[in-house]
Amino acid sequence: MNKRPLILLTNDDGIDAPGLFALFKELKKIGEVCIVAPSVERSAVGHAITLTDPLRVSEFRRDGYFFGYSVNGTPADCVKIAHWALLRKRPDVIVSGINLGSNTGINIIYSGTVSAATEGAILGIPSFAVSLTTYKNPDFRYAAKFARKLTNILIQKGLPCGVYLNVNVPACPEEEIRGVSITRQGLARFEEKFDKRSDPRGRTYYWLTGQKVDPEEDVGVDEGAIQARMVSITPVHYDMTKYEFIDILKSWQLEV
Amino acid sequence: MNKRPLILLTNDDGIDAPGLFALFKELKKIGEVCIVAPSVERSAVGHAITLTDPLRVSEFRRDGYFFGYSVNGTPADCVKIAHWALLRKRPDVIVSGINLGSNTGINIIYSGTVSAATEGAILGIPSFAVSLTTYKNPDFRYAAKFARKLTNILIQKGLPCGVYLNVNVPACPEEEIRGVSITRQGLARFEEKFDKRSDPRGRTYYWLTGQKVDPEEDVGVDEGAIQARMVSITPVHYDMTKYEFIDILKSWQLEV
Repeated sequence: MNKRPLILLTNDDGIDAPGLFALFKELKKIGEVCIVAPSVERSAVGHAITLTDPLRVSEFRRDGYFFGYSVNGTPADCVKIAHWALLRKRPDVIVSGINLGSNTGINIIYSGTVSAATEGAILGIPSFAVSLTTYKNPDFRYAAKFARKLTNILIQKGLPCGVYLNVNVPACPEEEIRGVSITRQGLARFEEKFDKRSDPRGRTYYWLTGQKVDPEEDVGVDEGAIQARMVSITPVHYDMTKYEFIDILKSWQLEV
Repeated sequence: MNKRPLILLTNDDGIDAPGLFALFKELKKIGEVCIVAPSVERSAVGHAITLTDPLRVSEFRRDGYFFGYSVNGTPADCVKIAHWALLRKRPDVIVSGINLGSNTGINIIYSGTVSAATEGAILGIPSFAVSLTTYKNPDFRYAAKFARKLTNILIQKGLPCGVYLNVNVPACPEEEIRGVSITRQGLARFEEKFDKRSDPRGRTYYWLTGQKVDPEEDVGVDEGAIQARMVSITPVHYDMTKYEFIDILKSWQLEV
């Protein structure tokens, strides 16, 4: 009799990313882990799905052994195809990450890592995304351990319909982490810029750059918690309705 | 003295799409229209932005005259580059569409059309997405007229910080439209399927298909309004936080 939970693991940095491997090593301590992840890095693909091209699935080997399925699609594609075509049973939990770089504030609407957890929630499966807030010299060990602990809790407690979690872990030594903060999504916006450049053939092109305006420093906000060296956990959902505005709009007399 | 409002127009079906042209013809009656749109169709790109490739901008001509700027990016890229690099002044309103096919229910999280309006809201500019709920024999005229009316209203009234509108127009003759319904986003999910096929070289590939489970028929829900032949207007926002769950999560003792 096998009571080990089935954990579906994906990411948007690609199936060979160190953050995914770090998570795999921790999660296999507590369950059966199935990996279905993009074949290449898919950062900032947002919540894209592949409709116009066929999806292909390959077996990906690591150190000579079967490691997981790689898909020529997005993180959202990976969760869908895992659930509807590849897995023989329903996963108990879906974990997406560990992303290299934070997924906080309004950036989460562009995040492939988060979109995989969104798909999980749509399927009614407890899901979370986990990111390490650095791009340089990442040490994924603490984030992976925290993700294992959270996975265990989600397997026990579940999550309400449509709710999933966005977790960000500060990039500092474990002993410097000051606790966990349950947060809301930051809403600070970016002052963006497009660098205008010329290519070797004299044609103009643009690169997007930018920096955050007035970041929110409250530890009750995802970015503020990270600044305070706390693990940030934001409960999120995919109902974008602004309910408070419905009655106001009704008063606008928009009748045809 | 020129008091004509500046309207930024974009879409995700591409700059040569008939839905965009129909909207252009109506909007130029009430303001100066600047078009910045993807060079090719970008359906289901979701809220993607282009970080790893340079963006290029071309002047697009229609019937021999300058029509707008085409960008080798996503709808979100178009709004960003229009605002930060191409326009000489801030637009008064941003309109995205007219999309060929509905953007209702959980599909809106995959929608490039809606993501352009999201970007507009992030920039603090009143914005809406508009879609015609058919893929066959589209007649965009009524949807374009309705969008013109709504544009005028938004220029007068504005929208609160972070709020934007997702508009769906039923694909039926104008005289059969039964009014306007202010709605919430539908949350019915899909029963999906991956068709498993073999290519001419015997390799397996998959196509995503699916159908909605238990669609919501209430006219207070986007899909229900469309079924009842009403124009659906859903106020949306990009704060994904599930506020009601914050206190519950705090009680979970997730301390490090």
